[in-house]
Amino acid sequence: MTGLRRSWLQSANAAETDFPLNNLPCGVFSAGGSGPRCGVAIGDRILDVAALERAGLIALAGGPLLQAGIWNPLMAAGPAVWAALRAQLTALLAEGSEAANDLSRHLVEQREAVLHLPFAVAEFTDFYASRHHAFNVGSMFRGPENALPPNWLHMPIGYNGRASSVVVSGTPVRRPWGQVREPGEEAPRFVPSARLDFELELGAIVGQPSCGPVTVAEADRMIFGYVLLNDWSARDIQAWEYQPLGPFQSKATATTISPWIVTRAALEPFRCPTPPRERPLLPHLAEPGPMLYDIALEAELTPDGAEPVTIARSNYRHMSYSAAQQLAHHTTSGCPMRVGDLIGSGTISGPDRTSRGSLLELSWGGREPLAVGSATRSFLEDGDRLTLRGHAAAGGYRVGFGECSGRILPALADPYRREEKPRR
Amino acid sequence: MTGLRRSWLQSANAAETDFPLNNLPCGVFSAGGSGPRCGVAIGDRILDVAALERAGLIALAGGPLLQAGIWNPLMAAGPAVWAALRAQLTALLAEGSEAANDLSRHLVEQREAVLHLPFAVAEFTDFYASRHHAFNVGSMFRGPENALPPNWLHMPIGYNGRASSVVVSGTPVRRPWGQVREPGEEAPRFVPSARLDFELELGAIVGQPSCGPVTVAEADRMIFGYVLLNDWSARDIQAWEYQPLGPFQSKATATTISPWIVTRAALEPFRCPTPPRERPLLPHLAEPGPMLYDIALEAELTPDGAEPVTIARSNYRHMSYSAAQQLAHHTTSGCPMRVGDLIGSGTISGPDRTSRGSLLELSWGGREPLAVGSATRSFLEDGDRLTLRGHAAAGGYRVGFGECSGRILPALADPYRREEKPRR
Repeated sequence: MTGLRRSWLQSANAAETDFPLNNLPCGVFSAGGSGPRCGVAIGDRILDVAALERAGLIALAGGPLLQAGIWNPLMAAGPAVWAALRAQLTALLAEGSEAANDLSRHLVEQREAVLHLPFAVAEFTDFYASRHHAFNVGSMFRGPENALPPNWLHMPIGYNGRASSVVVSGTPVRRPWGQVREPGEEAPRFVPSARLDFELELGAIVGQPSCGPVTVAEADRMIFGYVLLNDWSARDIQAWEYQPLGPFQSKATATTISPWIVTRAALEPFRCPTPPRERPLLPHLAEPGPMLYDIALEAELTPDGAEPVTIARSNYRHMSYSAAQQLAHHTTSGCPMRVGDLIGSGTISGPDRTSRGSLLELSWGGREPLAVGSATRSFLEDGDRLTLRGHAAAGGYRVGFGECSGRILPALADPYRREEKPRR
Repeated sequence: MTGLRRSWLQSANAAETDFPLNNLPCGVFSAGGSGPRCGVAIGDRILDVAALERAGLIALAGGPLLQAGIWNPLMAAGPAVWAALRAQLTALLAEGSEAANDLSRHLVEQREAVLHLPFAVAEFTDFYASRHHAFNVGSMFRGPENALPPNWLHMPIGYNGRASSVVVSGTPVRRPWGQVREPGEEAPRFVPSARLDFELELGAIVGQPSCGPVTVAEADRMIFGYVLLNDWSARDIQAWEYQPLGPFQSKATATTISPWIVTRAALEPFRCPTPPRERPLLPHLAEPGPMLYDIALEAELTPDGAEPVTIARSNYRHMSYSAAQQLAHHTTSGCPMRVGDLIGSGTISGPDRTSRGSLLELSWGGREPLAVGSATRSFLEDGDRLTLRGHAAAGGYRVGFGECSGRILPALADPYRREEKPRR
């Protein structure tokens, strides 16, 4: 495992930074009145790589690739170009580089920047790949004897989500209305959700297209990078709607992602295998090597006006299926994949009570409310802020994701009164 | 109800044409070596409206809107522009118009054109809105006592599909591989689907965006037009994968749409209400007026080397939920809708045995194979061509959709041998 790569930018060498020279995650920012542009986080700054490309300080085959205010053109250019960009930036930012003077004018303080969605989301798919989460949720929805569906041990179970609802960290989330029917009720009601929840996930970003089945090894090479992902879920709407075609409006209000794409290259030193399996996988889904990552994750809840409380600590290594396996399964039917497809890992719950990645699990369906400082929570309340964080750590440095955060706004009094419509 | 609007183009006045002056559906074609461009079908010709706009023979506010080789820019311009285009084309093509000479050079014979996807599909959602289909399929998957899920009578049940798999009529469909487990088997197998099926549907195309809940009346006004839609389905893959998150790879190989978007304006004379309901809908889903259309539909199966046989005749008027109701439900959570979203009606099955819109229903899960000429079919076989047709008819004319057709190619011998990969 490599150690910290030192930079001439001192804040990139700090032990607690998410963004050392080893990381170089890709985002889109605006600052000082200028429009969204591609940048790379380094220490407490953002390097304006769009400006670097215009100035000829970096040169990419097939370029310009960094001028669109999204990372899709760079992703489409393929792994050789991804590697070239990483190598050039690493050289420019390394301790001893003579480029320090040229680059300084293209560094923006992160605290002065507004971050945007880093890529155009082509389509969004979300999986269900932590055995602990699947068992916990299955127990609550169908009872422990039917908790794990028979297919679950044989393939990654997923559903198509809604790309239009993906938003960047910091975007407020309006509590949705929806149709619900509580047990014992004769007819459903159309009401604001009373069981709004988060889901602690990672998202993998597809950087290369496919038009036929791909192997797990090929799928791994198609992945450009990863983000933190919170698939906000209205559990009362979900329970009423999900049979037989799966979640729909319960997960369509918003899905929040962190603003920095941590590249696969930056995560290479942290690869680890999936946990031991109860049943062998069919050959087309077997892993040719370790394809998970050892990424420590946490969820923090901040009630309105109160102090933040960490309510869950988990790790991506608990997943039974890697993003590469999920992507390979996604293509078995011949389903074409496109640059910018986003693949949610599914809720990342670990084996113990404090490692559960949703309030549904943490409060066991609301039956065991969770202490959050001096308050308690079964589900999210108006004004609550939920923040995900994650990083992989090695001797002397960490590769972090920054924050994936959103605050709950109260439901509209009447969702059909036009003057009240939320502005996005 | 208006009668036939007569055109100076005689083929547009023929009783059997799908494309009289009353229709004016929107497509994208190439001919004579030139790239895909926007056209409108009229009689046996295509009017090159991209050329008309360049030549100044039509003028649209905010234009040019017809130069992108897709209809999305025109859709995004909104209902007033849609109406302006229809009015200008109607005047230019009407009997007695002095534009006949100017227009003649911009007419291409349909038989000499290749048709493309008429719009960029933003996202694809498919519903499940024929009570007959839901009962038939539910009976087979879960038994007649559990056939209709409890939510079904209260809201349109749908799932997010895969936009990348939407193809235009004429595109071959490769039989997919997938994971299946037959009853009594201990472990699943990865094999080519043995139960490949079609679904007779209409697709509604969202022409205006939304960013919050919309009423049914507002949803209706957001719809630009309709296409025929065949949601190819691998029933054996579906049965194994669909619990608990819904269909995924079973419906991701391909969804075929007809090349001509029949506009909502052209369908206005054919509006009809949904059938009587067993349970009243909640107010936000109630229809403010008739929002289905009386559209006669048929499915034709042509075994390799044999004569075509019509295997089903149905009508869009059998649906329990209109596209406007589906779209309104789609927005209840605040889910943003975008220009180019495609909303599948769900399989359009009628009340009797010959009006079932899938082989799953026509052959009752394969237990009652269907006679197709001198052959029989439980599911689709390699070389089969399945063609959907549809039209609304009034005194002396019909508004038709053209064909939605696809032929089944055999599964790849080994889906991971690269030289065998299908070219799309």
